[in-house]
Amino acid sequence: MVTAPTTLRDIAQACGVSVSTVSRALANNPAIAKKTRESIQSLAKELDYRPNAQARALKSSRTDAIGVVIPSLINPFFAAMAAAIEDEANQAGYATIITSSGENTPKMEEAIEALRARQVDGILAVPHSDSAEMLEHVARSTPLLFVDRYIEGSNIPAVVSNSAPGLKAALQALAERGHRKVGYLAGPQTTSTGLERLKEFRSFSEELGLEYIIHHGGYLHEEGFLGTQKLLAQKPTAIIAGDSMMTFGALEALYREHVDIGKQIALVGFDDFVFMRIQPAPVSIIDQSVEEMGRIALRNLVASFGGKSPPQSAVVETRFIPRESIDFSP
Amino acid sequence: MVTAPTTLRDIAQACGVSVSTVSRALANNPAIAKKTRESIQSLAKELDYRPNAQARALKSSRTDAIGVVIPSLINPFFAAMAAAIEDEANQAGYATIITSSGENTPKMEEAIEALRARQVDGILAVPHSDSAEMLEHVARSTPLLFVDRYIEGSNIPAVVSNSAPGLKAALQALAERGHRKVGYLAGPQTTSTGLERLKEFRSFSEELGLEYIIHHGGYLHEEGFLGTQKLLAQKPTAIIAGDSMMTFGALEALYREHVDIGKQIALVGFDDFVFMRIQPAPVSIIDQSVEEMGRIALRNLVASFGGKSPPQSAVVETRFIPRESIDFSP
Repeated sequence: MVTAPTTLRDIAQACGVSVSTVSRALANNPAIAKKTRESIQSLAKELDYRPNAQARALKSSRTDAIGVVIPSLINPFFAAMAAAIEDEANQAGYATIITSSGENTPKMEEAIEALRARQVDGILAVPHSDSAEMLEHVARSTPLLFVDRYIEGSNIPAVVSNSAPGLKAALQALAERGHRKVGYLAGPQTTSTGLERLKEFRSFSEELGLEYIIHHGGYLHEEGFLGTQKLLAQKPTAIIAGDSMMTFGALEALYREHVDIGKQIALVGFDDFVFMRIQPAPVSIIDQSVEEMGRIALRNLVASFGGKSPPQSAVVETRFIPRESIDFSP
Repeated sequence: MVTAPTTLRDIAQACGVSVSTVSRALANNPAIAKKTRESIQSLAKELDYRPNAQARALKSSRTDAIGVVIPSLINPFFAAMAAAIEDEANQAGYATIITSSGENTPKMEEAIEALRARQVDGILAVPHSDSAEMLEHVARSTPLLFVDRYIEGSNIPAVVSNSAPGLKAALQALAERGHRKVGYLAGPQTTSTGLERLKEFRSFSEELGLEYIIHHGGYLHEEGFLGTQKLLAQKPTAIIAGDSMMTFGALEALYREHVDIGKQIALVGFDDFVFMRIQPAPVSIIDQSVEEMGRIALRNLVASFGGKSPPQSAVVETRFIPRESIDFSP
């Protein structure tokens, strides 16, 4: 059924020449007579010969492969990021090896080790602070760029979003509509995004004179669900979920409790997935342009190859998209 | 910033021995004196030496990498499949190189070419019929297993789901509740799933004495949206969407038209994603166990390596999950 791929040796035997003649003929080396070159090239085509990427990799010490470590493909935010990175990488002639960290350090270490054993040219990773030491070590021998999050105190470069403009606009929109008490579903404080968004939420709420209540959750559906149930007991008129997974959890909790979104409570979530619009009252969103983040990260990583400096950091601004979910005054 | 990884040569120079001595010491070859072996091994550890996967690949002509070609990571069905394949592959010691075909033949060809140039040990691919000839050609030199879909008339093995039990149970549940006219959003007739489901829908509807109307769509959100608007004009009391993307489109159309799901119309979709439950009336689902399909496919592909037979086919049964979206009689 399955036959072995054609090798240089196969072509050499078929033509009655040496392997090095075949190799030079396929490289179009003028040291080989034009006629010989052409007949070797046409035979290689006929035998469906393809150069061995592994062999080329050894010679050039480049594999043209990039490792991507994301928490999970099940999370649509990271699936969208991975899709954008893969597309941008293919356009630049690189393959992507995508692996999951499951947001835990042992799995992250395994993923990174597997990528390094394959000698990938570089790694894009979504880090969490527990993995800081291990990642610092990796960055000494492999080009490494963080994406979506950075690690406080680390000098590994990162392509991240700035949640401030989107979060500020969301709170302003709520204040303008007369909301006075806002609940917040905060992300894990082991991530730069979880830390920063909570800090910004507090400071903008205070600036606007809003009362606030906080549930310390995590980037999980269940945390959004339980957190929303807890916040509801304290009667906020608006809830902001600190990431997309918690936004899904908040939606489910509000439906189960029969609290009418956009009529009895305002809801603001993160990240503009289609699911946010496929609701009776489409959800207002603080959008991070996850595809843009992924594409910039890939380009900055590739641009660093062969150079002496590490990849460049970048910041992508967030924006607020108001929708029916906030269209009322309490 | 970035230093080159440690090679066997580096260790050999540091110890004042030959590269082949280092190689044998690291393989724990007793031909090398125990003391020498130990000191070489400890130096390798200190210098953070990791064996070069590329070099091993050349020797064993195995790369321990598996190519995965899916239509898109943005579709949560294929993201879930890719996540299951990646997890199962990692457990078996393989890396996965995930690429997208965008459901079009030129992009599929590019993806397959890129994977073959990397000499992956095998490929899992979600095919469409236009790519049949090219994929038949690939299967002659690379272990290839289809997943989710097969190609009519091709003898390339496939791991697919059998939609009959789930679809039959859904139509029975609708008939029992007194529905008499059911709309169907059909998938593309260039895919085995699109063809089979439409055929089964017709035949089970006729068995149950149900009137039916059909929109010939595709596996796209917009097709579900437009198709639902068209079907509504013909007043069905129930709609079945032939895949998850069209289910999302149907939900959006029903919300925009203010048709109350589970009260004015029954809705049945495909594939049990969390988004199907995060709705005021959770959506009844024909579930394909996409993770199981992905895991079985990976295991069957790996089991074929080194053997003389192609990978084994398998069929996973679907089941119907009734929920609030059908809880009424028209």
